[in-house]
Amino acid sequence: MTIEVAAIGGFHVGGREVRLEGLPVRHARFAVGGPEKVVDPNGAFEAEQMYVQYVRLASPTAPWPLLLWHGGGQTGVTWEDTPDGRPGWQMRFLEAGWDVYVSDAVERGRAGWARFPEIFPTEPVFREKRQAWELFRVGPPGSWADEPEARRPFPGTRFPWRAYDRFFKQTVPRWAGHEAITQRAYDALVGAVGPCAIMAHSQGGAFAMQAALAAPETVRAVIAIEPSGVPDPGAVDPARVRDVPHLVVWGDFIAGDAAWTDNRARVARYWEALARAGGRAEVLDLPAEGIHGNSHFPMMDDNSDAVAALVERWLRGLAG
Amino acid sequence: MTIEVAAIGGFHVGGREVRLEGLPVRHARFAVGGPEKVVDPNGAFEAEQMYVQYVRLASPTAPWPLLLWHGGGQTGVTWEDTPDGRPGWQMRFLEAGWDVYVSDAVERGRAGWARFPEIFPTEPVFREKRQAWELFRVGPPGSWADEPEARRPFPGTRFPWRAYDRFFKQTVPRWAGHEAITQRAYDALVGAVGPCAIMAHSQGGAFAMQAALAAPETVRAVIAIEPSGVPDPGAVDPARVRDVPHLVVWGDFIAGDAAWTDNRARVARYWEALARAGGRAEVLDLPAEGIHGNSHFPMMDDNSDAVAALVERWLRGLAG
Repeated sequence: MTIEVAAIGGFHVGGREVRLEGLPVRHARFAVGGPEKVVDPNGAFEAEQMYVQYVRLASPTAPWPLLLWHGGGQTGVTWEDTPDGRPGWQMRFLEAGWDVYVSDAVERGRAGWARFPEIFPTEPVFREKRQAWELFRVGPPGSWADEPEARRPFPGTRFPWRAYDRFFKQTVPRWAGHEAITQRAYDALVGAVGPCAIMAHSQGGAFAMQAALAAPETVRAVIAIEPSGVPDPGAVDPARVRDVPHLVVWGDFIAGDAAWTDNRARVARYWEALARAGGRAEVLDLPAEGIHGNSHFPMMDDNSDAVAALVERWLRGLAG
Repeated sequence: MTIEVAAIGGFHVGGREVRLEGLPVRHARFAVGGPEKVVDPNGAFEAEQMYVQYVRLASPTAPWPLLLWHGGGQTGVTWEDTPDGRPGWQMRFLEAGWDVYVSDAVERGRAGWARFPEIFPTEPVFREKRQAWELFRVGPPGSWADEPEARRPFPGTRFPWRAYDRFFKQTVPRWAGHEAITQRAYDALVGAVGPCAIMAHSQGGAFAMQAALAAPETVRAVIAIEPSGVPDPGAVDPARVRDVPHLVVWGDFIAGDAAWTDNRARVARYWEALARAGGRAEVLDLPAEGIHGNSHFPMMDDNSDAVAALVERWLRGLAG
């Protein structure tokens, strides 16, 4: 199907000016056929901003825009095509009538990143293929092989694992310890957009939950797809988001994975705190619904359209 | 006006697998409320790929897709909103009937970047505000001030200079000396898309001209917006692109700027070589057309729509 679009654009939000001085000058050549230039690394820079791209429909039928927040080591590309070339959730939610805002968090993708250690105190971390294969539950420990055809994913996996190397080209570097600056930019984004629903993946999940705690009158719903963390229920006031429905979506192969089992238990404790405070905290456990084989990236799995439809139905139910 | 869109999506193209070994392990915490994890920086990575996002119309009226390539220290955001919030050229060319592919070159934005010095041999370069203010011909040397209101742009500038700090949030780090790997990815992009027109800004200009030399049967037109370099006419065969029309677009305030005057002369020599080889190499010199005040970023200047219309008319003339 086609969509009638009123506007496509992007902008940066949040961040601050940073000034550097006392660094030595360098020389470099920047264009084919161009001259060598002096590079003075001192002066004024922007840092800690984030990027968002919006697609606004001519006639959205959803009550609010939908913000799509990616996970760690990723960018907004998470929500575009699947690694095997099928349409992603950005397109599917547009088709379903939602204005969609896809962002790149601070330091990721089009958000840009800042010099280290002068501005960002630590060095970045680069995710590695084998480790990600296991962390993302494409295959169990020991199932990785350097040769693509020798890799052994979980039987019944829905992840397009034959396109794994192509998927991996989406990976970007990240920094540890940037939660506060990233949260500040996300909160600025919510403030800039106004009333909205947030769907967040993995590392983005906790940022979305915190954004709801910071602006419960603006964030109308939180959907956490396989969140890798949650706010500490003892350190926040879950009653603040009593009127913000939360949904968590879990894929398959968690039971045999100690780290994901622990993590799911941590999320469950926060969900219980939300419920005790009078909130609506729901769980879409795909295997429990008879939907098997999903990885940590259900928006890329071969049943991505079906999972999107389930999430969209939940969201529509809130608005109705 | 609204546009009828058939597909929005993105993918990565080009690049290669790189393996690292022998680096020491680290520890870091990656999610709010998440556990501390071991980071082993060794293993397999992807490097040197680039990113492209496409918007395909339900009924394009243009003969080919239009590829939009950004300049140095920038990403595809160049073609989105202007810094003062008006629609960018991505939207304007979609409205004019072109399928549009906006890319982030190797190492920029959503393309991702690789560890240095282990994969990228040198350290990145971070563009500074004052230097960019002068290089982009927003204001003459000495016109910069830290305080936004104290800055003195060229009289009659069309750049939205009061939004300069917001514009600067688009800036991303870059590497010098990556011309060959970046060109390889751009050539792969052209191969993946097929027959196309390329519009490229600043550093992107030389990449577009080289892509046409590499695939003259695929690249149907090159529009270089303020190119910062050109192929060496003695090192390439301009006759290869005899059938690929080239247009260069220049803004204002070049005459008083030694570096840009030199650069324009270098571009003119390549244009002469194209013409001598029987090619069509044209110049849209905006001040000579009575259009004054444009900066190095005509797609962001306050007459961006008018300049887009001139370029679009030239492109349509080729197809007609």
